[in-house]
Amino acid sequence: MNKDCEKNLINLISEIATSYRQNTVFSVYESANLPNRSEIIEILQELRQLIFPGFFQSKRLTDSTIEYYIGDLLISIQEKLHKQVKLALQYKHKSDYGNDEELIEEKTNKVCMTFIKSIPMIQEYIVTDVQAAYEGDPAAGDLEQVIFSYPGVFAISIYRIAHELDKLAVPYIPRIMTEYAHGKTGIDINAGAEIGKYFFIDHGTGVVIGQTCVIGEYVKIYQGVTLGALSTRGGQALEGVRRHPTIEDNVTIYSGATILGGETIIGKNSVIGGNAFITQSVPADTRVSVKNPELKFRNSKPEELKQEFIFDWVI
Amino acid sequence: MNKDCEKNLINLISEIATSYRQNTVFSVYESANLPNRSEIIEILQELRQLIFPGFFQSKRLTDSTIEYYIGDLLISIQEKLHKQVKLALQYKHKSDYGNDEELIEEKTNKVCMTFIKSIPMIQEYIVTDVQAAYEGDPAAGDLEQVIFSYPGVFAISIYRIAHELDKLAVPYIPRIMTEYAHGKTGIDINAGAEIGKYFFIDHGTGVVIGQTCVIGEYVKIYQGVTLGALSTRGGQALEGVRRHPTIEDNVTIYSGATILGGETIIGKNSVIGGNAFITQSVPADTRVSVKNPELKFRNSKPEELKQEFIFDWVI
Amino acid sequence: MNKDCEKNLINLISEIATSYRQNTVFSVYESANLPNRSEIIEILQELRQLIFPGFFQSKRLTDSTIEYYIGDLLISIQEKLHKQVKLALQYKHKSDYGNDEELIEEKTNKVCMTFIKSIPMIQEYIVTDVQAAYEGDPAAGDLEQVIFSYPGVFAISIYRIAHELDKLAVPYIPRIMTEYAHGKTGIDINAGAEIGKYFFIDHGTGVVIGQTCVIGEYVKIYQGVTLGALSTRGGQALEGVRRHPTIEDNVTIYSGATILGGETIIGKNSVIGGNAFITQSVPADTRVSVKNPELKFRNSKPEELKQEFIFDWVI
Repeated sequence: MNKDCEKNLINLISEIATSYRQNTVFSVYESANLPNRSEIIEILQELRQLIFPGFFQSKRLTDSTIEYYIGDLLISIQEKLHKQVKLALQYKHKSDYGNDEELIEEKTNKVCMTFIKSIPMIQEYIVTDVQAAYEGDPAAGDLEQVIFSYPGVFAISIYRIAHELDKLAVPYIPRIMTEYAHGKTGIDINAGAEIGKYFFIDHGTGVVIGQTCVIGEYVKIYQGVTLGALSTRGGQALEGVRRHPTIEDNVTIYSGATILGGETIIGKNSVIGGNAFITQSVPADTRVSVKNPELKFRNSKPEELKQEFIFDWVI
Repeated sequence: MNKDCEKNLINLISEIATSYRQNTVFSVYESANLPNRSEIIEILQELRQLIFPGFFQSKRLTDSTIEYYIGDLLISIQEKLHKQVKLALQYKHKSDYGNDEELIEEKTNKVCMTFIKSIPMIQEYIVTDVQAAYEGDPAAGDLEQVIFSYPGVFAISIYRIAHELDKLAVPYIPRIMTEYAHGKTGIDINAGAEIGKYFFIDHGTGVVIGQTCVIGEYVKIYQGVTLGALSTRGGQALEGVRRHPTIEDNVTIYSGATILGGETIIGKNSVIGGNAFITQSVPADTRVSVKNPELKFRNSKPEELKQEFIFDWVI
Repeated sequence: MNKDCEKNLINLISEIATSYRQNTVFSVYESANLPNRSEIIEILQELRQLIFPGFFQSKRLTDSTIEYYIGDLLISIQEKLHKQVKLALQYKHKSDYGNDEELIEEKTNKVCMTFIKSIPMIQEYIVTDVQAAYEGDPAAGDLEQVIFSYPGVFAISIYRIAHELDKLAVPYIPRIMTEYAHGKTGIDINAGAEIGKYFFIDHGTGVVIGQTCVIGEYVKIYQGVTLGALSTRGGQALEGVRRHPTIEDNVTIYSGATILGGETIIGKNSVIGGNAFITQSVPADTRVSVKNPELKFRNSKPEELKQEFIFDWVI
């Protein structure tokens, strides 16, 4: 590094330090540390190994040693979760009870114990999701293929874990978890949504399921479906308000459909056609189809197609 | 960890062990191991280093040592692939020939040798895809930029590898591969699809190409295009049935278009406009454009726009 | 490995070596090395740790040691960036000045110093994006949640870094960076686009922002929005031509909207409704809404829904 470059760096260091000190969002002066995203992802990976034994690790499992396998994983999950939940509670509540070490420890213990106890229930739900994916997709092959590969099952599994932590009012961690799944799959399920058993998302890229959605059992959703809010121009003033739709049991929603609004209810057994745009309730046992935009056909010689650079009617 | 927590964990261990024993999907009692997703991804990374020398590793390559580079990679790929294919065949066929060690070994050798032999052909195809991306995108810069960065080229490369394994009836591994690419790019190409040379997918997020698609040469597809089935409500009963469209040579399909059905054929040289929804065949040399939904324009003062929280006409 | 397999491999090695030698795109005979994608991603991760202290590393930061933290990161970023920029310039310019070691070194120093100096400005812009995300989303919780989890903030941050390198005419690296973000988030922002402060992308999967876009301040965009070109059938002939729209200050664009063309301007304060397809300019203070495609409703008994396999009107 030459002299100029060195001087440059030294000036920059103090400039950046000043910006840290002036922006309250930078936490350097906080006494508490922030939770660690990488360790939260490790927790998810261990939970996945626990929920699907034999699928996501290379150790050979046998009946006589399976309790050790489970025990090892549970202890590791418990330790990491305890650490991250404590950091999250401490940081989020620094201005109220975040410095009361005993209270924080007690709250952390309660959260972790309640969550750990819910693991068999989470597993039970996820097994129904695997079943739904297998039954719903002619290309599935077998249940193992679904567990190994289906992004919908991956995203729903992580949502189900995050949802339990969200119900326990754990800050940051649920959203870090669901956004991890969003990044891996293109499926964005807010941890606050409530979703029944046997949930299947096929392909899934572009799916958005908002924070206050309520979804029944045996619901099937395709890529690009939005279950959203009518408008969020209210911003923070809308926090906590019911903004997203209710989808009842047995509903199928085909790709690209958009269903909006906190008062919108899609009644049970209904089928929503691809690209439908719905802002009002639909009664039970209804098929909603879209009169798709009219197409225009024009015959062209290939030479023409190649010569034209800009069309007025095509992207 | 306190006493309560310990007791809690011990109860949980036996609860989870019981659920493993009751659900046949959990493979702990299988004598065979499952294939390992991480090692399958390593195979893909090494294949990529082999197909694009100099791009995805930091070793300096020279003409006189290039044979060693190729040899090292091929041996490593061969070893890993052999292990994973064997695990996959053993597990999938556990109830028929999965315990016949000699037969499994023979089948594994055959699959691996056939696949390895096809690598130069795979490379040749992928080089045409790189060419198509460069020629089709004004922002490409040069071929190197395309190889380094284009998600379409990444997804198509992995599809071309997975497709060869799929043709050899290898279980699990092809889908693990294509879903790895789907996760990285948002482009979901089923390994069963048949796709000709010079295939270009631009941007790509949200693209879905179904299992029984047949796609010709010089086809160009944009983000959000679905080549799908009319309905999959038949579920497993539809396995093996032709459900997805045929796209002939030289067709361009703009973003957001949906083309559905096993009998739907898009004739050569045709251009499908953005957001078109097509469930019937289109003759050759046709431009299909969409009469887009009518727009309503309303002038508003900025203050109004800020005061309103819920619109009846906007997401 | 058996004899057959060995022979097979040896033949393949020479076949692949021949294909390397015949295709100019394979860089094995180049004297220069290519830049390394992994190290470019490390640069991004360190820049992120610098821009958001305390969020993406587990070290505990204190006021008295913060200068060391900044210094360490800056030196590491500077060293890695210098190496990668030099490789990129050397390779790209191999046929003009790529072998003039002194000139390359000088150009590399200039690029690196200019970039490093711009870090505080990049940070300042990104802080406004965090603010916009927090204010625009009722589910945000707090600024920390936004920094930890929001894919829009992630993609925009990386775009802002890549854009500075793009302005300095650094080859390969800007696109490798934005495609890294695209892979992680489904948000595809070309490094060439110009984007003002307080930019917010919600959910984001499927967003495409083209190379020649110009976007003002306080703009808000939802998932699946395309700001694209009318046609790219001109391919390489269109390089450098203005092909993408202008979005003025304070515009909101709801999900799935498509805005195309280099002459299209969306005037300030306007609101574009979901799924709108726009190829012409919209004046300031306008709300554009879509007359959504008509829906058909049909009542069906659940048994019927289950018996039917193929619908004529549904995906």
